[in-house]
Amino acid sequence: MGKILRVNMSDRVARLEELPEKYSLLGGRALTSQIVFDEVPPDCNPLGPFNKLVIAPGLLSGTTAPSSGRLSVGGKSPLTGGIKEANAGGVTSQKLASLGIKAVIIEGRPSTDDWYLVKVSAAGADLIPANDLAGKGTYEVTTVLLERYGKEVGIITIGPAGEMLMATAGVTNNDNDGNSSRYAGRGGLGAVMGSKHVKAIVVDTVEHFGARVKDVEQFRAAARIFTECLRKHPITGNGLAAYGTDILMNIVNEIGALPTRNFHSGHFDQAREVSGEKLAEVAVARGGKATHSCMPGCVMHCSNIYPMPDGKVCAPIEYETAWALGPNLENANLDIVAKLNYICNDVGLDTIETGCTLGVLMDAGVLPFGDGEAAVKVLEEVGKATPLGRIIGSGSVCAGKVFGITHVPAAKGQGMPGYDPRACKGNGVTYATSPMGADHTAGYAVTANILRSGGYVDPLKSDGQVELSRNLQIATAAIDSTGLCLFVAFAVLDDPEALPAIIAMLNAQYGLQMTAEDVTKLGQQVLRTEREFNRLAGFTGADDSLPEFFVLEEFPPHNTRFDIDAKELSQVFNF
Amino acid sequence: MGKILRVNMSDRVARLEELPEKYSLLGGRALTSQIVFDEVPPDCNPLGPFNKLVIAPGLLSGTTAPSSGRLSVGGKSPLTGGIKEANAGGVTSQKLASLGIKAVIIEGRPSTDDWYLVKVSAAGADLIPANDLAGKGTYEVTTVLLERYGKEVGIITIGPAGEMLMATAGVTNNDNDGNSSRYAGRGGLGAVMGSKHVKAIVVDTVEHFGARVKDVEQFRAAARIFTECLRKHPITGNGLAAYGTDILMNIVNEIGALPTRNFHSGHFDQAREVSGEKLAEVAVARGGKATHSCMPGCVMHCSNIYPMPDGKVCAPIEYETAWALGPNLENANLDIVAKLNYICNDVGLDTIETGCTLGVLMDAGVLPFGDGEAAVKVLEEVGKATPLGRIIGSGSVCAGKVFGITHVPAAKGQGMPGYDPRACKGNGVTYATSPMGADHTAGYAVTANILRSGGYVDPLKSDGQVELSRNLQIATAAIDSTGLCLFVAFAVLDDPEALPAIIAMLNAQYGLQMTAEDVTKLGQQVLRTEREFNRLAGFTGADDSLPEFFVLEEFPPHNTRFDIDAKELSQVFNF
Repeated sequence: MGKILRVNMSDRVARLEELPEKYSLLGGRALTSQIVFDEVPPDCNPLGPFNKLVIAPGLLSGTTAPSSGRLSVGGKSPLTGGIKEANAGGVTSQKLASLGIKAVIIEGRPSTDDWYLVKVSAAGADLIPANDLAGKGTYEVTTVLLERYGKEVGIITIGPAGEMLMATAGVTNNDNDGNSSRYAGRGGLGAVMGSKHVKAIVVDTVEHFGARVKDVEQFRAAARIFTECLRKHPITGNGLAAYGTDILMNIVNEIGALPTRNFHSGHFDQAREVSGEKLAEVAVARGGKATHSCMPGCVMHCSNIYPMPDGKVCAPIEYETAWALGPNLENANLDIVAKLNYICNDVGLDTIETGCTLGVLMDAGVLPFGDGEAAVKVLEEVGKATPLGRIIGSGSVCAGKVFGITHVPAAKGQGMPGYDPRACKGNGVTYATSPMGADHTAGYAVTANILRSGGYVDPLKSDGQVELSRNLQIATAAIDSTGLCLFVAFAVLDDPEALPAIIAMLNAQYGLQMTAEDVTKLGQQVLRTEREFNRLAGFTGADDSLPEFFVLEEFPPHNTRFDIDAKELSQVFNF
Repeated sequence: MGKILRVNMSDRVARLEELPEKYSLLGGRALTSQIVFDEVPPDCNPLGPFNKLVIAPGLLSGTTAPSSGRLSVGGKSPLTGGIKEANAGGVTSQKLASLGIKAVIIEGRPSTDDWYLVKVSAAGADLIPANDLAGKGTYEVTTVLLERYGKEVGIITIGPAGEMLMATAGVTNNDNDGNSSRYAGRGGLGAVMGSKHVKAIVVDTVEHFGARVKDVEQFRAAARIFTECLRKHPITGNGLAAYGTDILMNIVNEIGALPTRNFHSGHFDQAREVSGEKLAEVAVARGGKATHSCMPGCVMHCSNIYPMPDGKVCAPIEYETAWALGPNLENANLDIVAKLNYICNDVGLDTIETGCTLGVLMDAGVLPFGDGEAAVKVLEEVGKATPLGRIIGSGSVCAGKVFGITHVPAAKGQGMPGYDPRACKGNGVTYATSPMGADHTAGYAVTANILRSGGYVDPLKSDGQVELSRNLQIATAAIDSTGLCLFVAFAVLDDPEALPAIIAMLNAQYGLQMTAEDVTKLGQQVLRTEREFNRLAGFTGADDSLPEFFVLEEFPPHNTRFDIDAKELSQVFNF
């Protein structure tokens, strides 16, 4: 059985516990959400002593299953007020799993203002004073800790935004090349970590593939098949592998679903300037990398390393970030995108939410659309903790409230990613209904709406979107529990060999006889648990909705509105 | 039958309609809440086109019933997200009622940025361009409009805070002496008015007592009895009449329930310096008034006129304001209280919420506790629309979110008035459960907890508080529907002649045979309607709660906590 690393910050004790039997077949999101449900009072203050930060590798993390090293981070979100799971690539999931640690639970709150770091290795866990790291950006913290504990350790950390309890602060960890910016960005879990006064977690092991596997041969065979599935799929084997996620920029723009100028239009004339193709060209020309693996054993390598004009490196620039800090602000300067991305990474903010917030501030006239330098200037205020900087760190809904703006693209308090719900209605259903708030990964209907993966559902029509989102939300909850990167979904949707291969890996690792039906049940169970937490926290059907303007305002160029009503949306969880 | 003045700002048409029969026996809060329930979609954006601002005189307003000129203002609150009614003294309730107008409904939203005023007289209603008034403070607006339309008109207006859609902006109206600061302050209804681009409503009549009364003789007889009840009660006839509401300062302080330093303690050493006794002394010495009637026909005259050192006048300074801007900020300087009050009045902010917000900002270290000059300086930023100014205008919960403060005294998003729920537990029950959010007037348990009016319930114990709050909330909903000042409750609670006299006035005016039971039923019906609106807007039992710190942190000097749990609180609406 695995271990739980429980860090009680009230008593300042870090100890390893046996994993309770009931958690033995849970991992990743399934485990973080279950522990949050079991241990966190749904009505607690997210930044108070009763919330907990739960970190878990996926079921397959730490094995040689390709692309299986996603790290899940969970808790009650200070942004949405509901349950939250955000996950990221990087090395720490594999390292935790290699140490046999199934979950880290950080609870309580110290009575002093001191900061700590948690160090865990095969020898055990320690809580170490870390006041010297307080106030430092994530780049510096990671550099310092890699020097202190060795180049091979994994580092989970927060930036000053998390320390300052900003509701959009993320939790980051490092990749195999020491880049510190693999963010579990959404929903403010960095502020939860900050509220516990834990600045960093050092996972001290060189191993990435040390998780125990019961039937190694069967596992290897399945992993080979699954690797092949990923390599031969046109998206995971070709598109993502050549240009990374930002290959979506031109595609989403062409289809008229690219939120431009704070979701006022679906087409940005200069989208090409911040596209994956352009990014690859500039990165390579400057000696960076157009493709890069965020974790050992990934075959998609959709990440990148972008050298900036000032000599620093931004790694990676994802589609969502390029959109949020590009077209959403009418900014067509990729170097500005990189600069804004870098600042977010360093101070510790979610880039999607930051882009949404800056869009709202531009709508409010605080700074002009298209003025990248002005955006850099206000974003730098976050680290300085000025009132405007703190507003930015508090997210789009807060900024809308402060500046009297009703045109705020958010659901359940969380800013919306780069696919407008009026021109990619399947994603609109996901944004409205996901227990996570507006989250594209929670039910990525872009698959069937735009990429024609797993069939085709017209993105401009309401027909079929509820069913599409439902199935994707269930599948995603299951995938997020395995530690597999969500992009494996393309293969799962289009290649009949892919899902059986995943199940075969799970069965081989844990000695099970799971079926596809069991995977579906796992996904459903995760969603039910999350929704029940939210219900107890005070969420109702009224929260499963989009802002009024999506229903009222036509979205160019297709001039569509979001027309899937509350009754239809309520059918998403009809399972 | 009376009229409804319906102002459609989308079409820019103001017209008088016949009052629907179903509304004929509703007034004040009963009418605003019913119209909001009937006409406003509970899930709408409070600052969007679907919300409506509803203004209504009480059932007895415009008659010679003493102290019956409260004006109710209702809508969906941008602060709480739920239904809201806030009421105020002043002359406009009596004037509207004298014109036969039972309600004003402002709906829609103009497509341009132009501002308007609504003018209503016996000759009809007009919508008049008012761009010249935009951006002006309420003092200047009132002065300008009194000059333009005559000294006898009633003026309902908002300040720049309402224009800027700040969630704590109030709606004000003038008293008989031209003072413009009779605020329906709570819950941001000024922002709703601002969202409609209506800067002011001019009620053009000299009459205050022109409402139709069916049986004048019977009415006069009942009004005489009721007047006598108010005059002979020690609180309404003596305490309030001598020192105004701020007579409470020393009383609440002595009992240890005076929230001091952002609700960290219940006793303020220098409370006397901002007490009603001190206020009366200074006001009289400077040529102001220690007592003053906020409306014609009031026998309690608990208002005051406070001349400030700069030659301006603040009228009135209420207990709640003196507490919010005094002890809550550890400010013992009455002139600073007056200055802060004056700025709030002029820019158009709720003073209670502003005090709570400044307390939170002081807790966050944005400015020091006790530094009145610093408080004036930051409050002046509201009118300048700086980021910090806008945060202040957005209320205490927003400020807490922005600055990462969990010690925010608020319920349902609304800041808490000047009685700590740990040392005046009946008010705590009201704060937690009222459909209005933290509102002392919604169920003023100070009566039995502190003033021993209507019996005595130990303020430090949980026993009896739910029943006390329930009965007061029901009675208050009924009183708020009559247009009577809530302070008549003291007489109603202690003098067996008072309630029959109120009922006799209503019966005489409308030709009814109402009983005391009918009054209770009216109050219950109002609460049911409001709670149903909130339920449809997404509120649940989880919203009927107080912030965690009231349960966790002991409150000096009695070191009590709020210990009435969710199950007990859920019994408040068990009727």
